[in-house]
Amino acid sequence: MIIVPADALRELGVKIFAAQGTPDEKARFLVDTLIEANLAGHDSHGVHYYVGYSDRVKRGFIDVDAEPAVVKETPTSALVDGRWAFGQVTAMRVAELAVEKARESMVAGVGAFNCNHIGRVGYYTSWAAKQGIIGNMYVNVGNPSACAYNGLGKVLGTNPYSVSVPTGSETPFLVDWATSVVAQGKISVARAKHAKIPTTWTRDKYGRVTDDPNAVYNGGWLLPFSEYKGYGMSMICELLGAVLTGSRTGISGVAEPPSPNGVFMLAVNPEAFVGLDAFTEGASRLLSQMKALPAEAGKRVMVPGEPEKESKERRLREGIPIPDDTWAQIKALCARLGVDMSDTEK
Amino acid sequence: MIIVPADALRELGVKIFAAQGTPDEKARFLVDTLIEANLAGHDSHGVHYYVGYSDRVKRGFIDVDAEPAVVKETPTSALVDGRWAFGQVTAMRVAELAVEKARESMVAGVGAFNCNHIGRVGYYTSWAAKQGIIGNMYVNVGNPSACAYNGLGKVLGTNPYSVSVPTGSETPFLVDWATSVVAQGKISVARAKHAKIPTTWTRDKYGRVTDDPNAVYNGGWLLPFSEYKGYGMSMICELLGAVLTGSRTGISGVAEPPSPNGVFMLAVNPEAFVGLDAFTEGASRLLSQMKALPAEAGKRVMVPGEPEKESKERRLREGIPIPDDTWAQIKALCARLGVDMSDTEK
Repeated sequence: MIIVPADALRELGVKIFAAQGTPDEKARFLVDTLIEANLAGHDSHGVHYYVGYSDRVKRGFIDVDAEPAVVKETPTSALVDGRWAFGQVTAMRVAELAVEKARESMVAGVGAFNCNHIGRVGYYTSWAAKQGIIGNMYVNVGNPSACAYNGLGKVLGTNPYSVSVPTGSETPFLVDWATSVVAQGKISVARAKHAKIPTTWTRDKYGRVTDDPNAVYNGGWLLPFSEYKGYGMSMICELLGAVLTGSRTGISGVAEPPSPNGVFMLAVNPEAFVGLDAFTEGASRLLSQMKALPAEAGKRVMVPGEPEKESKERRLREGIPIPDDTWAQIKALCARLGVDMSDTEK
Repeated sequence: MIIVPADALRELGVKIFAAQGTPDEKARFLVDTLIEANLAGHDSHGVHYYVGYSDRVKRGFIDVDAEPAVVKETPTSALVDGRWAFGQVTAMRVAELAVEKARESMVAGVGAFNCNHIGRVGYYTSWAAKQGIIGNMYVNVGNPSACAYNGLGKVLGTNPYSVSVPTGSETPFLVDWATSVVAQGKISVARAKHAKIPTTWTRDKYGRVTDDPNAVYNGGWLLPFSEYKGYGMSMICELLGAVLTGSRTGISGVAEPPSPNGVFMLAVNPEAFVGLDAFTEGASRLLSQMKALPAEAGKRVMVPGEPEKESKERRLREGIPIPDDTWAQIKALCARLGVDMSDTEK
């Protein structure tokens, strides 16, 4: 494990993607989304993707300079062809359009197809919330890794869901979770750390219980969270993220590109209902009331988004921990691309 | 346990609510929503509410002839004052407005306050889906019965969430679940049957593990499903269902009326994206693929909404089972209201 300051990791990332032809603004934005994931404590969606995304660029699956294009539009909706840009670039375009349309028309829906992996979904919904708009995002992952409830084999993506709302206060509200028991990235992190995983996370290729993070890479699969409830939520992500936008479903059997995301965002302007001021006041009061609740011994009641906020404060001070295996992969990538790491390793 | 044909239960229900001054059309609609819940196998939301709702009418919490009124409106949104009509009447008005606006404007959001208990949420979302519109509904229950993740005490409603989409086929798609481990009604059903409940459902008033369905009526509480994930989903229902619409939050501490629902529905017209035909074709294909998957020994893969469809087919043939305690309460109610049950008990 090594600890690297966020800014050093950021500058390294920008150099890595610039070395592959990514325009500066896109590289800075892309890297920011990954660093923010690490800062939030979600290393599964962080800088280990410097390696994964670079591999996809090399294999021709990511077009580093593509611009997403709107192919169908109404005052309340847009359908975006991501043109295989970095998924983050497409997802941000989705969020911008959704917020813009919700500002004008109160309620809006925006979808995207031909979209690469978009990273941590909460990045986009919490950005919307900072603009005073409620963000609601359903994402399908076209590369399946989870089973159906009662089913055998990989047919569903980890299919994340996220909602963030404006609170007008220091306390964020951000729900952002995979509909599998855990995100695929959490298994990668466990594997990089040579750690065991809980037996409730995965099954091996015969459907057997296992605590080995490698099983899922050897024909095994993730379980949906909470049995039929997580399965239902995951299916909603397939239907809204993929079928509604024309993206690839998890069960399609198509293997390439390796990790397409179908994205669907619903944006709601509180002005159409109680009004933004009344909404943020009510949200802020509710969240304060929750935080003040009595808790089980040794625990406290947090609101969704609060652990991430605390992690960010801590990691901005202390730096971001990177497992040795991940760091070795980043070093090998820099060697391949001729990126100088001397500033980062100081 | 007695078994009653759906039609006999329906006619009895209409007589019960008519005897309390409910106009015929409203009584028939209200009773239909309850019978449909029983037919779907969700007895927790079924005809035992003949008793509960009648009690609320008697205590002045339900106005049997009120008409919900739109108090704020745009082409994509509406805010509805339910005026303490039967919650079902208000929720149906929400669904009708949302579908109408999504037909015209592609994406719409409709909220309601001053709304009584709306019953089974899937009734409204699946109605929208039958009109070719994707229905997405968040409901808060202002009468809390579940704890926060890590918290002690009742502060959250069972806060159901439902999504239904058009499939253009025999296979429905309907997600509809409480964000507590189970709906409160499932505890009532267990209590009526004098059955034990799983220890993962509730805690007693001291926060202790219990299998007694009575514990939750004696100061105990329900747990959110899947720890922080269900807690997050429940909080989304508080924020969108209650705070956004001006309804009462679970934590407010206000006890009356006894079971207000804050309702928020998002409706999406597939025509704004891949188009309705392409959507239903894709949805239908996806659902067929899921159903054809290999399953764990002795099980099969179903799609959300399928168990309810099968239950309805079976119960239309075989009748609806009513626990003895529930039946005794319905009989006592009929005696109080002077409703003749001889047709029902034939």
